[in-house]
Amino acid sequence: EFRRQFLKLHPYERAKFYVEQSPEVRKRMYEYLSPAEMAEIFDHLDIEEDEYKIYLSEMDPLFVAQMLAHMYADNAADVLNELDKKEVANYLTIMDDEAAKDIQGLLHYKEYTAGSIMTTEYIAIHANQTVRSAMQILKKEAAQAETIYYLYVVNEQRQLVGVLSLRELLTSDDDEMIVDIMNDRVVSVFVDEDQEDVARKMQNYNFLALPVVDANNHLLGIITVDDIVDVISEEATDDYSKLAGVPDVDIQHNPLEAAKKRLPWLIILLFLGMMTANLISRFEDTLQKVAILAVFIPLIAGMSGNTGTQSLAVAVRRLAMGDLEKEGKWSMVAREALTGLLIGLSCGVVITIVVYVWKQQFFLGVLVGLALFATLTVATVAGALIPLFMHKLRIDPAVASGPFITTINDLISILIYFGLATMFMDYLL
Amino acid sequence: EFRRQFLKLHPYERAKFYVEQSPEVRKRMYEYLSPAEMAEIFDHLDIEEDEYKIYLSEMDPLFVAQMLAHMYADNAADVLNELDKKEVANYLTIMDDEAAKDIQGLLHYKEYTAGSIMTTEYIAIHANQTVRSAMQILKKEAAQAETIYYLYVVNEQRQLVGVLSLRELLTSDDDEMIVDIMNDRVVSVFVDEDQEDVARKMQNYNFLALPVVDANNHLLGIITVDDIVDVISEEATDDYSKLAGVPDVDIQHNPLEAAKKRLPWLIILLFLGMMTANLISRFEDTLQKVAILAVFIPLIAGMSGNTGTQSLAVAVRRLAMGDLEKEGKWSMVAREALTGLLIGLSCGVVITIVVYVWKQQFFLGVLVGLALFATLTVATVAGALIPLFMHKLRIDPAVASGPFITTINDLISILIYFGLATMFMDYLL
Ligand SMILES: [Mg+2]
Ligand SMILES: [Mg+2]
Ligand SMILES: [Mg+2]
Ligand SMILES: [Mg+2]
Ligand SMILES: [Mg+2]
Ligand SMILES: [Mg+2]
Ligand SMILES: [Mg+2]
Ligand SMILES: [Mg+2]
Ligand SMILES: [Mg+2]
Ligand SMILES: [Mg+2]
Ligand SMILES: [Mg+2]
Ligand SMILES: [Mg+2]
Ligand SMILES: [Mg+2]
Repeated sequence: EFRRQFLKLHPYERAKFYVEQSPEVRKRMYEYLSPAEMAEIFDHLDIEEDEYKIYLSEMDPLFVAQMLAHMYADNAADVLNELDKKEVANYLTIMDDEAAKDIQGLLHYKEYTAGSIMTTEYIAIHANQTVRSAMQILKKEAAQAETIYYLYVVNEQRQLVGVLSLRELLTSDDDEMIVDIMNDRVVSVFVDEDQEDVARKMQNYNFLALPVVDANNHLLGIITVDDIVDVISEEATDDYSKLAGVPDVDIQHNPLEAAKKRLPWLIILLFLGMMTANLISRFEDTLQKVAILAVFIPLIAGMSGNTGTQSLAVAVRRLAMGDLEKEGKWSMVAREALTGLLIGLSCGVVITIVVYVWKQQFFLGVLVGLALFATLTVATVAGALIPLFMHKLRIDPAVASGPFITTINDLISILIYFGLATMFMDYLL
Repeated sequence: EFRRQFLKLHPYERAKFYVEQSPEVRKRMYEYLSPAEMAEIFDHLDIEEDEYKIYLSEMDPLFVAQMLAHMYADNAADVLNELDKKEVANYLTIMDDEAAKDIQGLLHYKEYTAGSIMTTEYIAIHANQTVRSAMQILKKEAAQAETIYYLYVVNEQRQLVGVLSLRELLTSDDDEMIVDIMNDRVVSVFVDEDQEDVARKMQNYNFLALPVVDANNHLLGIITVDDIVDVISEEATDDYSKLAGVPDVDIQHNPLEAAKKRLPWLIILLFLGMMTANLISRFEDTLQKVAILAVFIPLIAGMSGNTGTQSLAVAVRRLAMGDLEKEGKWSMVAREALTGLLIGLSCGVVITIVVYVWKQQFFLGVLVGLALFATLTVATVAGALIPLFMHKLRIDPAVASGPFITTINDLISILIYFGLATMFMDYLL
């Protein structure tokens, strides 16, 4: 009846159905479905981290342990990483030993490393086997393995010595030896490698999985492309959020939580803004004499924020892509400086003409144009320098958001604008 | 010698080597390598679009045609899409007919649709076959197919009726009929579906490939996960670039080109900034009387840009993820309005106290606090409304960049700040 129809759905569709139900219906589902069937749902769940706790608390602990054992080890470890240590220990004790060992081994890798996204359900064979016997191993392990499309060749010490795709296996003769057909130039990643580097490798080589090794080339696990797809979109969302100065654009918050999340950044920026206000108030004499200067404050401060945001984004991406290892940091700064000069020159000329035509004051036009030229040049360089500086301090350069650079550039541009105005005061009066 | 060593490299490594050579060395490579071997390199090339022209012009036209025929049809179509129509027609004429037909069929799909990223090298079988005979077809086509890990089941009209993974095929009995083991609830995409929707489907279902059908469910091609990985990172770069107001952060430009690319946006923003300047100049009387007002211009304008950028990024993402179809646009705007109120209230109270303590002017503190409260609320709503408005006009909401919302919010915030100041003038004097 319901069970049969339900199991015809793809696991992702079952997972979508599951999260849309009331707690009562979910509890009914735990009775109708086996731990293995619930494991398929949990392998495809896409929920906030704190929701795991809620769902698991609805189930019997033994049911949870069995379900976790049936899940792919990487996903089970992800679930357990959201629970308290006591609960984790509890579930691992009830679980069958082999599954518990697999999952436990994955729990201790640092977030955002290859280890944190790898799984242990790979197929390993030996170099001195025939294709026929490898095929038998593959068929036996097909139900368990996360991917059967690559076979990893290990030696007695479980060191990775070769790799073979199922395509190559299928198109080879039954009696051939694995050693003769395997690829011995294996592309692998280290267990503590950054997940973004793993993602770039997978993208470049077009692999469906990558083997993970330790410093002695022992095979520890594999990373499959579906998890890399998730990594790429999470990292992209992360960069996008940071550029906008929001903790995470993808998490749906109610207004109170959203305000709480966004405020810390805004309060910091507010105090930076106070520094700008303080700076202007030191030029109150100048302002008193030439009140018209105030008219161009938002234009100059705003434009410096705009060009700063542009060069910031370019610098953050170059750093993230590892482009600067080849090119050199100073060469990028020099290029941005030249770009800034050209942008400043263009905008400065335009604004000089516009102000002159509008206000009929030649020197005011020249002052605003000169100030815009100087601020845009400096702001463009600042946009490139700040992420480099953060990188040096080992802070993620993506933290330097658009709002941050915009506020810093407000400060810089006001200093330049009023500095120039004070210097050329005689011409303006 | 060199050839043998070179062919041991993974195609991606060969492609990297290839692009690093001088034209002379590249020409030598065309002599040493066959069109099929060059095809493998071109299948893994990651270069700017205009570079294809340069590389192809170094080769003999017949060599190019043979190489294109050996490439996967989707990649060959991508290359041809960068050339002039005459050249395309020329290459297709020299090419063998079957390959030319395949590629030609792919040339006419609109960019960013499923059709533009699909390929035709899939394995199709029939429902009334046995597992054994399906396995024979698979082995025969394994060398050509882009993926052999899914088999697509079609009827006489080439309509898609089922799908079967190689894993299911391998774990089934040789004499079983395909119809009995295939999945008849096939997840497919339409040929004119947006590539981002295809990517989301692939990510949710964890597939390695998705079949592409027309309105009558005829199988047209498949999309493989490696191309989806590229789509996801390209779309992410695109959104990131737009948020920063740069055409493409990933393209390395020399300073002159970079300035040219960034200037159009900046000039538009410069004229928007002129509107802000014009607005302030209408309040010159107010400014003349209370010069201290100028001190808080960058703070108020800057903060409204910051919070506007935050809500803008949230709204753009929600729209891109299709979240608003479920939730409703007005409910998001209402939520952002409440968030803005809370943010405005917090920052307003903080600044009132700070200004009062700093300048010892109670009414000035209240005015700045009130202005900040009002501008932050309005700016947050504006950040959410502008992308919705663009979506309505069928413009990509991502075009509403941080710099754009910041400049619009400069205008709004100046109007509110000086409006309030003029209203309460009596208290400030
Ligand atoms: Mg397991
Ligand atoms: Mg994990
Ligand atoms: Mg790729
Ligand atoms: Mg996984
Ligand atoms: Mg990152
Ligand atoms: Mg600014
Ligand atoms: Mg071909
Ligand atoms: Mg392609
Ligand atoms: Mg294409
Ligand atoms: Mg997925
Ligand atoms: Mg492809
Ligand atoms: Mg997009
Ligand atoms: Mg602003």
